[in-house]
Amino acid sequence: MSEITLGRYFFERLHQLKVDTIFGLPGDFNLSLLDKVYEIDGMRWAGNANELNAGYAADGYARIKGIAAVVSTFGVGELSLTNAIAGSFAEHCAILNIVGLPSVNAQAKQLLLHHTLGNGDFTVFHRMFKNISQTSAFIADINTAPQEIDRCIRDAYIYQRPVYVGLPSNLVDLMVPASLLETPLDLSLKPNDPDAQDEVIETVERIIKDAKNPVILVDACASRHNCKGEVAQLVDATQFPVFTTPMGKSGVNESHPRFGGVYVGSLSRPDVKEAVESADLILSIGALLSDFNTGSFSYAYKTKNVVEFHSDYTKIRQATFPGVQMKEALNKLLKTVKSAVNPSYVPSPVPQQKLINSPAEPETPLTQEYLWTKVSSWFKEGDIIITETGTSAFGIVQSRFPNNTIGISQVLWGSIGYTVGATLGAAMAAQEIDPKKRVILFVGDGSLQLTVQEISTLCKWECNNTYLYVLNNDGYTIERLIHGQNASYNDIQPWNNLQLLPLFNAKDYECIRVATVGELNDLFDKKDFSISDKIRMIEVMLARMDAPANLVAQAKLSEMTNAQS
Amino acid sequence: MSEITLGRYFFERLHQLKVDTIFGLPGDFNLSLLDKVYEIDGMRWAGNANELNAGYAADGYARIKGIAAVVSTFGVGELSLTNAIAGSFAEHCAILNIVGLPSVNAQAKQLLLHHTLGNGDFTVFHRMFKNISQTSAFIADINTAPQEIDRCIRDAYIYQRPVYVGLPSNLVDLMVPASLLETPLDLSLKPNDPDAQDEVIETVERIIKDAKNPVILVDACASRHNCKGEVAQLVDATQFPVFTTPMGKSGVNESHPRFGGVYVGSLSRPDVKEAVESADLILSIGALLSDFNTGSFSYAYKTKNVVEFHSDYTKIRQATFPGVQMKEALNKLLKTVKSAVNPSYVPSPVPQQKLINSPAEPETPLTQEYLWTKVSSWFKEGDIIITETGTSAFGIVQSRFPNNTIGISQVLWGSIGYTVGATLGAAMAAQEIDPKKRVILFVGDGSLQLTVQEISTLCKWECNNTYLYVLNNDGYTIERLIHGQNASYNDIQPWNNLQLLPLFNAKDYECIRVATVGELNDLFDKKDFSISDKIRMIEVMLARMDAPANLVAQAKLSEMTNAQS
Repeated sequence: MSEITLGRYFFERLHQLKVDTIFGLPGDFNLSLLDKVYEIDGMRWAGNANELNAGYAADGYARIKGIAAVVSTFGVGELSLTNAIAGSFAEHCAILNIVGLPSVNAQAKQLLLHHTLGNGDFTVFHRMFKNISQTSAFIADINTAPQEIDRCIRDAYIYQRPVYVGLPSNLVDLMVPASLLETPLDLSLKPNDPDAQDEVIETVERIIKDAKNPVILVDACASRHNCKGEVAQLVDATQFPVFTTPMGKSGVNESHPRFGGVYVGSLSRPDVKEAVESADLILSIGALLSDFNTGSFSYAYKTKNVVEFHSDYTKIRQATFPGVQMKEALNKLLKTVKSAVNPSYVPSPVPQQKLINSPAEPETPLTQEYLWTKVSSWFKEGDIIITETGTSAFGIVQSRFPNNTIGISQVLWGSIGYTVGATLGAAMAAQEIDPKKRVILFVGDGSLQLTVQEISTLCKWECNNTYLYVLNNDGYTIERLIHGQNASYNDIQPWNNLQLLPLFNAKDYECIRVATVGELNDLFDKKDFSISDKIRMIEVMLARMDAPANLVAQAKLSEMTNAQS
Repeated sequence: MSEITLGRYFFERLHQLKVDTIFGLPGDFNLSLLDKVYEIDGMRWAGNANELNAGYAADGYARIKGIAAVVSTFGVGELSLTNAIAGSFAEHCAILNIVGLPSVNAQAKQLLLHHTLGNGDFTVFHRMFKNISQTSAFIADINTAPQEIDRCIRDAYIYQRPVYVGLPSNLVDLMVPASLLETPLDLSLKPNDPDAQDEVIETVERIIKDAKNPVILVDACASRHNCKGEVAQLVDATQFPVFTTPMGKSGVNESHPRFGGVYVGSLSRPDVKEAVESADLILSIGALLSDFNTGSFSYAYKTKNVVEFHSDYTKIRQATFPGVQMKEALNKLLKTVKSAVNPSYVPSPVPQQKLINSPAEPETPLTQEYLWTKVSSWFKEGDIIITETGTSAFGIVQSRFPNNTIGISQVLWGSIGYTVGATLGAAMAAQEIDPKKRVILFVGDGSLQLTVQEISTLCKWECNNTYLYVLNNDGYTIERLIHGQNASYNDIQPWNNLQLLPLFNAKDYECIRVATVGELNDLFDKKDFSISDKIRMIEVMLARMDAPANLVAQAKLSEMTNAQS
């Protein structure tokens, strides 16, 4: 096989990176391309229910496997992906956004094809996507196509951002040399400038030596740019207390004796707030300091000794070192950091979280507070835990994750409905890694409605590793807290949610409703329930205005920000 | 009330144009704006299930009422609308695309807010939308805001295209003079240049005088730019045979003795093809000559005497008259056209359509051919008939519409799933015009899955004027015809579709399945069934590869276009 089709080349390259599920929908400009998915052993076509969900699924898959791909068709397909792709851009996920284009000839003739704006402009959607892509390729020449594909895959992976690749329908069947596949993709980071890096390490070590009360603060990009290992080593080497942001949650082992909790500025637990803000050095890793991630920018450090490690630069106090990437810099630092710690440093005790609910009568109606505390004891090692923007993303901050948990929550972009698609992506990734790995979704009844049909794809693939907790509080509680508590625009049409799995023809499934403390306790006490052998939907009935305390406080800050003139 | 809020001002202006339903979803940057909807008597907030569906609904509403509005929130909300807005742009629908933005202050400070890309760029989504909008406003100054709003509404209406309006959350509560509302919006078209128009009329009349065998061909923009009345008068005055394109269907009264059928190039019925192509003059009105609208560009006129009337220009043979708009030009022409027709012109007989099925045993499985013929006799005056891209949009071409029917089909843009949202918009518009008006949807089981949750909004508003025909052929039959007949990417997860209405808590509803000729005939024979007093879902079981003959032919042409190198 000295030559293969361009379409196959693309998927073989992805397969080399263990991308074994391709998300998306068929459309008349990508059908020939999709044929090639089936030529590759171990690769599958997810076949999503709509494109937005497919994009969310790719994002969820990428958060588990490091990179993902979604295929759509020109115009009508790709535009339904914009919200998902923008979210992956904001939150650093590597997505190959592959679009089947009309043939080169049809484009050149400016034919008034269906799926166009009717004005002969075939590059308009590509132009739109450039705004939310790390890079892009609008392929028109078979000779340079393999290199262009390699460049795009590489950039998506390195920068952990979406990349747009337009593939004309007539090119996917043209042949390219198969031997190109023998040279592995170069996914290595560009080395840091040695002088700049040396200066960074030297300065950081000097500050560390002077620190009496330092902390490590871990944020989202530590996970997304594959630095969880470095973080863990840094904690072990220094014994500094380690905290995460909401978005960084699951970036460190929360059972580690040096784990202190989740820092969210003024919305933090008082002991966590005190511990972080009284530090005389903060080693910040992979920060993405958005409003919801910081309690509306309410950080109140008392120190100027902040070192920020980022994927593309390092900042020490006010000095920026462009291009000093954290992966290499942290590894360099790890070689000597232990000896840099002042011998007189005494690891201080870290804040401890209350993880047991106060006793309550079984018939007590469930509250968010009870739920998030209780669920911590049900989580187990290896779980993938997904929380939707709304009460769930705030509530999860109050829970504790076992070791090797992966948390997924779209704290910065915050598009409601995201998690239903992301759950599919994570569940399919889990099937490929370890079919027993549990994928646990917490989604509100309002958010569920936006993307509900992707549960059908979970059923199709028999993702029997999923738990779908639907927090039913009769509408958009997070918005009610921000504005319009009694406004009907925050209401939704009530659904009979427990009818969803049978509607979608789920094979092995279970539907459960819990409304009281006793029902929840009984559920978690059942041994069978913890074994992931079917798709489960658990509808959790909650009062309309019940919400985690940190969300109530955040909502007040948000309305103030919105009303600012 | 000498002053009103800017938010209220916007909705009052829309209310003046009889926009009484506002589509969209709440989000933290538009909540204060939404409060204002409730201040206006007779205006309602639809509250859609997701933004894409809301955009489709606005499009459907605009096709009935001439203009519509959809409200979303910054970033996450608006980006989910892009596909719908691009469709409204391609197909000429007037949509106010209103986006709630972060406050002016938050933008100026480049705060790393949620719903941003995390890079401080607050204009990026506006820039993306400019590509698919007639015009836009990114409002930042309360003093010029009312004029900007007026300009945007005006341009949307005049050009029948979407317009983007960004409204910062802090501005919607600022006051503007109420007296501004007393000056009605100027929605008049700019007058045509009199000299150019006179030359057009004179030339057209000269060609008409010479014509022995002329025809009128009506396309989508005749309806969209409000020229159905002019078309009807032109047919009456000249007695020329009149045809429509697929996209122009319902632009003329199909019961009119001079109506000859639907012309789709080589995919037309032979008698229609012959009648149009042998004409020695074609008066084309509002043409949008896309592939699916022309049988893949297979027009084969034998005449060079083609006169094209467009919303923004006129073309006579090879001569273009920029700025000569059809509305005024047709009205001018109508004053004298009767006398311009050659006295020796004898109105030739027009092609007649077979509208009765061949007799079949009751247990005969239903076919598309039987359905589309049979359903013609069930349609009645005033119906709104909506057909999804796929077998329905092709099948409907074989049906006949009663007078005053409105047909909705997205032939150019062709985004599957569009019709479920559009049905909601049309049904809510119908409630406002005439609650007895029936809204009849034909959608495939594949397309339904993309946007199914909008049926929930139909249930919420008790749109008991709707008939939802789900053509169940077990997947994407249109794609199977184009490519990959047995490819699993054209399969879908089968759903128990008749469980949808109870899932969504429909109040008055009926669920019916028909699979045979006899069952369909019995259904249409029931008098009760024709009375629109509940939401009905009728699942029509069809064979996987059964399709209207014109679609089978189109699919062959499409695959050829795709494969062109």
